[in-house]
Amino acid sequence: MCTFTQLYFQKMNKQQLIHQIKSKKSFLCIGLDVDLEKIPSHLLKLEDPIFEFNKQIIDATHDLTIAYKPNTAFYEAYGIKGWNSLVKTINYINKNYPDIFTIADAKRGDIGNTSTRYAKAFFEDMNFDSVTVAPYMGSDSVEPFLAFADKFTILLTLTSNKGGLDFQILKDENGVTLYEKVLQQSKTWKNSDQLMYVVGATRPEYFKKIRNIVPNSFLLVPGIGAQGGSLQEVCKYGLNKEIGLLINSSRGIIYASPDKDFAAISREKALELQKEMTTILLENKI
Amino acid sequence: MCTFTQLYFQKMNKQQLIHQIKSKKSFLCIGLDVDLEKIPSHLLKLEDPIFEFNKQIIDATHDLTIAYKPNTAFYEAYGIKGWNSLVKTINYINKNYPDIFTIADAKRGDIGNTSTRYAKAFFEDMNFDSVTVAPYMGSDSVEPFLAFADKFTILLTLTSNKGGLDFQILKDENGVTLYEKVLQQSKTWKNSDQLMYVVGATRPEYFKKIRNIVPNSFLLVPGIGAQGGSLQEVCKYGLNKEIGLLINSSRGIIYASPDKDFAAISREKALELQKEMTTILLENKI
Repeated sequence: MCTFTQLYFQKMNKQQLIHQIKSKKSFLCIGLDVDLEKIPSHLLKLEDPIFEFNKQIIDATHDLTIAYKPNTAFYEAYGIKGWNSLVKTINYINKNYPDIFTIADAKRGDIGNTSTRYAKAFFEDMNFDSVTVAPYMGSDSVEPFLAFADKFTILLTLTSNKGGLDFQILKDENGVTLYEKVLQQSKTWKNSDQLMYVVGATRPEYFKKIRNIVPNSFLLVPGIGAQGGSLQEVCKYGLNKEIGLLINSSRGIIYASPDKDFAAISREKALELQKEMTTILLENKI
Repeated sequence: MCTFTQLYFQKMNKQQLIHQIKSKKSFLCIGLDVDLEKIPSHLLKLEDPIFEFNKQIIDATHDLTIAYKPNTAFYEAYGIKGWNSLVKTINYINKNYPDIFTIADAKRGDIGNTSTRYAKAFFEDMNFDSVTVAPYMGSDSVEPFLAFADKFTILLTLTSNKGGLDFQILKDENGVTLYEKVLQQSKTWKNSDQLMYVVGATRPEYFKKIRNIVPNSFLLVPGIGAQGGSLQEVCKYGLNKEIGLLINSSRGIIYASPDKDFAAISREKALELQKEMTTILLENKI
């Protein structure tokens, strides 16, 4: 029986991440949300079509993207085989492209000793650079993740889905919304400099307020493309001096073609976004 | 490559759950939070000590408990082997004790199509009766779980940890707290009759308010024992005519002995709680 692997090593701090962005002229994150019903059918004959799909996407796009973000739900849905595909994917990235920032989009969170278990799973056992965490259970559900040096905890703040507005914009007696409270309180938590925040691209009107509270933090921004968010709008209010944005695209890149040319076409789609980002960085003299 | 297993079958509805409680005179849930550093050392020589530990605990306590609740974090922390132990555990319960209610304490939640993936993982692939879900992302992050007939979604409401108070009791302009909003709104969601709620035993003063909003729902109550909650206090305000409570104990039962007699001692601890519950049911004429 294995205990926690001892292969844990520090991989990327904030300055290294910024260096990568400047050198690649890109702040793109590609979401690896693999669905067997959507990937090219010729892959289904292989032993591990999920990993094979990811491998080809990664090989075709690694020089255009800063980060890969597998959403764990898509792997868990296939049971142990799916979990195995996830492990092979993160190992493949870490071995072949160690300068890529990796995000386990897991949206975990539990009481203290239990959150530590999740943190060990993603930071040590799988050696992700970061994990997304839900804030509902408060400080002691998040701080166990922040206890890992040079690992980042990306807190759900203002999500891109319709239901995100059910609770996140509720106002307290002083007119402060829940997502603002989450931002404010999280800044008081231990090792809060290792926090990033999830803010949906479908909510560009909120970015100004968010930047007032967390001017220096990185924001992970899903919702560009398929969900309707605009890159220009997000950058207008979300960019800071150190860029401070990781813009995620999943379906728009990885499912751009259902055929054997899927990897080449995913590169074309990633290149379109990377070029747009290069222009934005130039315009902002970054 | 496997796709979703076709073994999904409906197992337990609310009336069957109540019937089980009345017949066993118990509303106990045992948390299977297995930590290799805490289980008896003689098990560590076996190929799958986690499953072996669970199996012996389950065999020793199944007639005293209504539910088992593995917390997924404890399994994920051991990678693919841990996930495999979880699958073996749920299969063992479903095969040998089909009248037991099973809870995947996973605290998941994501945007719609992604939540569906998690729901399939826990309800179909593993055939749990229920899963715990975080409410932060709102209606469309929870409804995909509720779409599964005769499966229950247990929504985090008021958690037992210290940080639970960071956001959950924030009041809006009308003095309504966030956890009350979660309860109120969730009642408007599709298939809301398949909702249960997590309410920590460390917050007995809130049970009265909660019962005003959800008089008929089951509450899953962690925090008895090690975390300091009182069974009597919880029952005083939390019981309803159909019992409406599942009281969880994890460490207090499964780690009651570090030696070879651990299963027998876990039975003694479960029996103590079951007897206390029998008395409470009698006193309340249930």
